[in-house]
Amino acid sequence: MPEKKPLILITNDDGYQAKGIKELTACLRDLGELIVFAPDKARSGMSSAITSSMPLMYSLIRKEEGLTVYSCTGTPVDCVKLAVNEVTGRRPDLLVSGINHGGNMSIAVNYSGTMGAAAEGCIFGIPSLGVSLLDFLADADFTESCRLGHAVARQVLRDGLPDGTYLNLNVPKLPHVKGIKVCRQSRGRWEHEYMHTETPHDQPAFWLTGDFKDAEPVHPDNDTLALHYGYASLVPCKIDVTDYGFMQQLRLTVG
Amino acid sequence: MPEKKPLILITNDDGYQAKGIKELTACLRDLGELIVFAPDKARSGMSSAITSSMPLMYSLIRKEEGLTVYSCTGTPVDCVKLAVNEVTGRRPDLLVSGINHGGNMSIAVNYSGTMGAAAEGCIFGIPSLGVSLLDFLADADFTESCRLGHAVARQVLRDGLPDGTYLNLNVPKLPHVKGIKVCRQSRGRWEHEYMHTETPHDQPAFWLTGDFKDAEPVHPDNDTLALHYGYASLVPCKIDVTDYGFMQQLRLTVG
Repeated sequence: MPEKKPLILITNDDGYQAKGIKELTACLRDLGELIVFAPDKARSGMSSAITSSMPLMYSLIRKEEGLTVYSCTGTPVDCVKLAVNEVTGRRPDLLVSGINHGGNMSIAVNYSGTMGAAAEGCIFGIPSLGVSLLDFLADADFTESCRLGHAVARQVLRDGLPDGTYLNLNVPKLPHVKGIKVCRQSRGRWEHEYMHTETPHDQPAFWLTGDFKDAEPVHPDNDTLALHYGYASLVPCKIDVTDYGFMQQLRLTVG
Repeated sequence: MPEKKPLILITNDDGYQAKGIKELTACLRDLGELIVFAPDKARSGMSSAITSSMPLMYSLIRKEEGLTVYSCTGTPVDCVKLAVNEVTGRRPDLLVSGINHGGNMSIAVNYSGTMGAAAEGCIFGIPSLGVSLLDFLADADFTESCRLGHAVARQVLRDGLPDGTYLNLNVPKLPHVKGIKVCRQSRGRWEHEYMHTETPHDQPAFWLTGDFKDAEPVHPDNDTLALHYGYASLVPCKIDVTDYGFMQQLRLTVG
């Protein structure tokens, strides 16, 4: 009996028709049997949002040897939940989310639907990886991000990941990336977040925008800095957000 | 000159009209000047989702001595961002999100809009706390959760919190809670997540539901267990999700 090919679940937050997920799918074909299960439209900035106020639906888009593509009415996390519960049949051996049109370094991991999907895969016990390119354009060049995403995906498929840990790969917008640097999530936040506008009835209305402010621009393990210097950044992320250090201190004053 | 009263920002994910936020607001009146800035409708399960595809609007609901109430068209995180950027005038001294109708222990912190708002407050450098009651009912009894939420809010206002750390308080549905236990986020996930239903056109449709499965039911620091034994659980949570331990190991094989 031939060994079963690895089963790879692919999703994203830009929707199943985005160039990033199509290029990712094409480049991962040699690693296993692929199931693409992705939102039917762009769902950026959805973090780990889930849909409980309405039912979800999904549609088969196409099926060929080694690849099946579905679209789903839900968020990126909904896609992972629904695919694993109802569609894949067995637990996938790998989940790759992306390639996102736009970076998800630093605190962006908190808001990103791409990374929400990767976190959800991790909660299911699937070795999971999010891949993002620092280019928002619809026709961005994914050549380097595919090359590096493929390398990390292959390694994760071979070695696995610790229980409760998933990976965040960000790739700079460059024709030649210098390599991958293992980093930590840099500290920072957005400032000047809203553009002021008005409704047709002269009511104020606020569009989210803003400038990212790095809180520690010279820290050597900083993912934002690695990207600035032409490296891809790879940050291992944990599902468990408990602050164990402060937990001990808090015990002295509470309960 | 009299000292300025502390400024407290209150939000939630059940909407500004929910009983939980109204009771919370009433019980925090003695701690400072309150601004309630909350979604105009229920936005449960929104995690740290943000709205960038359309502009946000907000409305003044009422204003009285020491209390101003606004509703906003966005998610819980949108509410925090918009309030701090455009409405509060100065950085609030405390953010309290809740009281949520329903528990947010264990992995629920990942999906919860209540906790998304608390995390966002923390990113702004505001000492931030989410409060949830393990009762989904619209007319739940918030007496104990108000008493404990008030105690923790008062302590946080006095002592502050470490930079990048926020608190998750969950209160069991009991007439008399035994006290507060400082815990860590227990490991677990939901199983059997979808109820199968159909559209009027005989298409399958899937409602999110599911049973929470605790992965380590006897761990002494487990928040789910503390709640089971009649205590409120208090978990300090970190914005930085980097897995520092695995980062060192990953360096040996990548880059």
